[in-house]
Amino acid sequence: MARDAFLEAAIGQARKSMAEGGIPIGSVLVQEGKIIGRGHNCRVQTGSSIDHAEMNCLRNAGRLPAKVYSRCTIYSTLSPCPMCSGAIVLYKIPRVVIGENRTFAGAEDYLRVHGIQVDVVQDAECIEMMTNFIRENPELWQEDIGV
Amino acid sequence: MARDAFLEAAIGQARKSMAEGGIPIGSVLVQEGKIIGRGHNCRVQTGSSIDHAEMNCLRNAGRLPAKVYSRCTIYSTLSPCPMCSGAIVLYKIPRVVIGENRTFAGAEDYLRVHGIQVDVVQDAECIEMMTNFIRENPELWQEDIGV
Repeated sequence: MARDAFLEAAIGQARKSMAEGGIPIGSVLVQEGKIIGRGHNCRVQTGSSIDHAEMNCLRNAGRLPAKVYSRCTIYSTLSPCPMCSGAIVLYKIPRVVIGENRTFAGAEDYLRVHGIQVDVVQDAECIEMMTNFIRENPELWQEDIGV
Repeated sequence: MARDAFLEAAIGQARKSMAEGGIPIGSVLVQEGKIIGRGHNCRVQTGSSIDHAEMNCLRNAGRLPAKVYSRCTIYSTLSPCPMCSGAIVLYKIPRVVIGENRTFAGAEDYLRVHGIQVDVVQDAECIEMMTNFIRENPELWQEDIGV
């Protein structure tokens, strides 16, 4: 089955981060079939503790009114951590598509309890990118998730 | 009773944002009696949807290992929204001191369910700053909290 074009765009962001020497996690924000924001984890690139992929995607999408978020889906190559899940809850984005949750299980229950639809794809490339990254950079990864 | 010096520093950040024409919410991160990060809401100043006070405070504190966060208290002049509460849960900051929660009730239960100590001061200046701001800028405030 062909990969969803929006998940493909999020994976493109993850590949871009990996090429920059960063953590290979990417995200896109999609409003009714159109990408309105893209981002990737920039923790290594910017030295910022809050520059997770979904956060950068939301920042890059700009300041939006609630009625826009209410018509959006956010894609992330990896299960969103509590911070990114909290941002999704804050802005009441009704659907989250997750590339994989095998290498890290985020706050999916917190999303669901707020009525957000969560779909997990278990994409092989997403799993492979994170598996390789964690094996090669265990300390950097632990810092990313507060361990 | 004299105001706690760290809450005073967070209020100083809120006053700074107000003087810049921004949303008057400030935050400081305190490690064992020393301020290691300061920030204020910069949503107006930077046009960023994720630039809440606590997020900027955590960014300005830099990339820190989990053992540092575990010895910290974060102060915020206002009850932390789901995004900022999620960041506090991610980094397992064990205590949050909140200036007030009368003008906005954040995700305090989400913090408590993760074992985080939440202390609410109900500081008169914090309440007054937000009351005035919300009265004068209702749409900007609603956008800030995804309403």
